[in-house]
Amino acid sequence: MIRVTLIGSGNVAQHLIQAFSQTTVVELVQVFSRQPETVAHLVSSNKITSDFNGLQKVDLIIIAVSDNAITEVSNQIPLQNQLVVHTSGSVAMEALNAKNRKGVFYPLQTFSKTKAVDFKVIPVCLEAENETDYQILETVAKAICDVTYKVNSEQRKALHVAAVFVSNFVNHLYQIGETICSENQLDFAILKPLIQETAAKILTLSPTEAQTGPAKRQDTQTINAHLAFLTDEHQKEIYKLLTKSIIDNGKKL
Amino acid sequence: MIRVTLIGSGNVAQHLIQAFSQTTVVELVQVFSRQPETVAHLVSSNKITSDFNGLQKVDLIIIAVSDNAITEVSNQIPLQNQLVVHTSGSVAMEALNAKNRKGVFYPLQTFSKTKAVDFKVIPVCLEAENETDYQILETVAKAICDVTYKVNSEQRKALHVAAVFVSNFVNHLYQIGETICSENQLDFAILKPLIQETAAKILTLSPTEAQTGPAKRQDTQTINAHLAFLTDEHQKEIYKLLTKSIIDNGKKL
Repeated sequence: MIRVTLIGSGNVAQHLIQAFSQTTVVELVQVFSRQPETVAHLVSSNKITSDFNGLQKVDLIIIAVSDNAITEVSNQIPLQNQLVVHTSGSVAMEALNAKNRKGVFYPLQTFSKTKAVDFKVIPVCLEAENETDYQILETVAKAICDVTYKVNSEQRKALHVAAVFVSNFVNHLYQIGETICSENQLDFAILKPLIQETAAKILTLSPTEAQTGPAKRQDTQTINAHLAFLTDEHQKEIYKLLTKSIIDNGKKL
Repeated sequence: MIRVTLIGSGNVAQHLIQAFSQTTVVELVQVFSRQPETVAHLVSSNKITSDFNGLQKVDLIIIAVSDNAITEVSNQIPLQNQLVVHTSGSVAMEALNAKNRKGVFYPLQTFSKTKAVDFKVIPVCLEAENETDYQILETVAKAICDVTYKVNSEQRKALHVAAVFVSNFVNHLYQIGETICSENQLDFAILKPLIQETAAKILTLSPTEAQTGPAKRQDTQTINAHLAFLTDEHQKEIYKLLTKSIIDNGKKL
């Protein structure tokens, strides 16, 4: 078994603890948490520590804390030549203290405490300084998920930006749709099948092939009617900019 | 059986012909098409006409043609007091010729010829001038789909605008994600589970609850790093505007 220690108690840490507990490939040796009560329901108390000096040497230490705490946490680990990785999409591998072997274990998913996540379908993006360490990360990742990708720090930055567009910004457009519905006494549920179908489409079509709508057709009449309908200046501005971007994009093809 | 005639041969018309052929509630009496060959594989040739004067009186005529042709087509129908509806999200019921009883039969979905659509899960938005006609529309709709909504012309306009945000614009964000991936030698497939999960989340959480990411956290450091990473001015502008909108939205809550 690969001996793994987790540092952190947030969303990612909690989901990883649960995933590791369901595999025989990984032995979860310790969980470091400043608030032991936040993980007490997931792991037996003798494995929880809140003292960095209590950390044992293991095969892999995963730091699953907020981006701006990663460097400081890695500095506090009182071990040397220990494989230490973080789980962030936007922090370079080099942010980790150089006294240890560095790597990244980035599950590309949107985690929220209120919704269960099936780790199996989450791709995990891996990076390490050498092939031996990469193999350890891949074995641990494959124990909990189906697909892993080798992604270097520069690519991971690109991926994180792309993820903001296809997830955070997409969700904000859902939110605007919900606002327009509620302002017009419409049940947002009407739009949910369309939202699901729009996401499902790109599993079989490229986004360029899947593009439809007034901007794609350069249907100026409908576009102007929509702009006349919108009273919120923010929504109007977003409508204009995305319409222009779709039209410009069509010209490039 | 309710006797229905369809005018049109595009995506919506073709999907409706297929859906009606699988129910015993609706009898498809005629299909009007200027290009009979486009529907020849879906309906027997004796039912296809390309002459408006050949149109018989039925319970319902559905005009499924492009938005700007609806009025002209409705003017050409040589019948009176016939229930006639169109299938458009953005055209008012009043666009139909007043010599006939008017209505709207709007399936809220993104249709593309290259992808099959399960009509069962598509909500159909209905409007009619009186309750008797509404009942006919509802019976026809319920024969092919599970959910119908009563939506007046003003609400339908709102719904169509909202649909552009949650579908056309969302797909464009997918397209930007794909571009960023390919520019960085990353497989767009990495993002697909995230895209599916983002859409699935709003089935159980409101978009406001589901919002995550640097803008939601007002994480200026990550936002600036992303803006520094983006070189395409269009992408940068979209990133800035949507980030600002998420932050402003958070302040309103």
